[in-house]
Amino acid sequence: MKADHYRFDGSHPCEIRSLPTDAGEADEEKAAILRKTEENLEKMAALQDAFYADGREGLVIVLQALDAAGKDSIVKHVMGGLNPQGVRVTSFKQPTAEELSHDFLWRVNRALPARGSIAIFNRSYYEDVLVVQVHDLQKTYRMAPRVLQEDRKEFFRKRYRQIRNYEEYLYENSYRVVKILLNVSKQTQKKRFLERLERPEKNWKFSASDLKERALFDQYLDTFDEVISATATEHSPWFVLPADQKWYTRYLVSEVVVDALEKSCHEYPEVSDRMRDELKECRRLLDEEG
Amino acid sequence: MKADHYRFDGSHPCEIRSLPTDAGEADEEKAAILRKTEENLEKMAALQDAFYADGREGLVIVLQALDAAGKDSIVKHVMGGLNPQGVRVTSFKQPTAEELSHDFLWRVNRALPARGSIAIFNRSYYEDVLVVQVHDLQKTYRMAPRVLQEDRKEFFRKRYRQIRNYEEYLYENSYRVVKILLNVSKQTQKKRFLERLERPEKNWKFSASDLKERALFDQYLDTFDEVISATATEHSPWFVLPADQKWYTRYLVSEVVVDALEKSCHEYPEVSDRMRDELKECRRLLDEEG
Repeated sequence: MKADHYRFDGSHPCEIRSLPTDAGEADEEKAAILRKTEENLEKMAALQDAFYADGREGLVIVLQALDAAGKDSIVKHVMGGLNPQGVRVTSFKQPTAEELSHDFLWRVNRALPARGSIAIFNRSYYEDVLVVQVHDLQKTYRMAPRVLQEDRKEFFRKRYRQIRNYEEYLYENSYRVVKILLNVSKQTQKKRFLERLERPEKNWKFSASDLKERALFDQYLDTFDEVISATATEHSPWFVLPADQKWYTRYLVSEVVVDALEKSCHEYPEVSDRMRDELKECRRLLDEEG
Repeated sequence: MKADHYRFDGSHPCEIRSLPTDAGEADEEKAAILRKTEENLEKMAALQDAFYADGREGLVIVLQALDAAGKDSIVKHVMGGLNPQGVRVTSFKQPTAEELSHDFLWRVNRALPARGSIAIFNRSYYEDVLVVQVHDLQKTYRMAPRVLQEDRKEFFRKRYRQIRNYEEYLYENSYRVVKILLNVSKQTQKKRFLERLERPEKNWKFSASDLKERALFDQYLDTFDEVISATATEHSPWFVLPADQKWYTRYLVSEVVVDALEKSCHEYPEVSDRMRDELKECRRLLDEEG
């Protein structure tokens, strides 16, 4: 699949500045890609139905990105094709006081649905090594000196290991984690910010602090490189997807989700002979009603 | 402290059959030990008050044992000395359908209180490598073939690693975990079972299945050895405490809890000059009321 060009599984480091943010040559086959996206969405819905009935595996899809890269749009237009019965979207915002007084994966684990369901994390525990690291927020935490007096680099190196261990643990306990970074250019971010400022129905999506984060664009790119290189694994890969054209991003995400569901257990549970006899009897009783 | 004789931190393997289940020579100083237990309970309450106000660390106390070893009695008579405001006791029973459809630490994480609080786990995630292993319950789980088709030994070796990683993660996120196994002899278990059968107010504590578990006493001892050797670490040690005399067990547990609280952060938060001025002003306003 095309999305494999943007896949990181730990075998090579991530250098985000060398990756495309736009569709490139794919631009010429836009019509075909739109069709394929539709096909993928149908495939996805069918796979999810069986995945839900099967219930032996769970799937976590992590969405990370800078502002205006299109996370909400992906949730709406790609994940919107799924049956909400088996989907749980969680938007991880700034942690509450209660969340901060626990370990950083506490709220993540609470958002983890039963096997057979798909969790969509709109932002995630990766914020705890992204925004927290860029802004040195760990310094404001109330934790034991043995934790906080540590070297800053070492603190985050430990978090990378903790995240790797957590994802490995989930994999070994019959979940899969797939992580997507929407890779938007600084130019496209500017264009979308301007839209948000100009169009009244988009105003609510803009906040003055977005510009402060934009000023740290480069620092975020550096941190993405470090975080992705440290946490991409064969079982929990990262996909760093071009995000300047929404139609192209949607296509790539639909590929990633279809692929993840295909790799997961998705067999309708077998009906035993006894069960089949019972169903037959139920059928008879209903028919008798006339 | 005396309890250190029964401490395992990973530096040497556990051989539970070589450890005492009774008080031994301590029997002669019973009166002194009862006094010291009282002192410890007072110390514990004072330490907990500061630990709660401090709020920089959390404490998890895991209680594991075979039936009739005295877990409930420890919760009542030792932990009963704590202020319930900062304590949360969770009895981990047979997992529900909802719990089984998640990873095995899911319900544990949900029971984890905020820092500043003490979690008492009456049984714990260690059941997932004890009773589950002894009865091969993992075979009944609904999980992906890649998880279940694994070699049985390998499945539990992975769980040991998962548990080690989890406890290390908690330690690095400002929690401490202390694990206590109440080491009761087969003879004492029999004596206590007979009491439960004879005394009407104790009848409810007995179930026929208790005898089935008793028949596996030796298998459990073997499994304890393996589990403790695999999961004891410097930061999350095991204490395998003699449990044939309740007064002695209570003393040892009170030592362990006092020690854990002493090692944890327990300073009353400092009051800043500005805050002190505010308090003074509040004092003045109250005085003015006459």
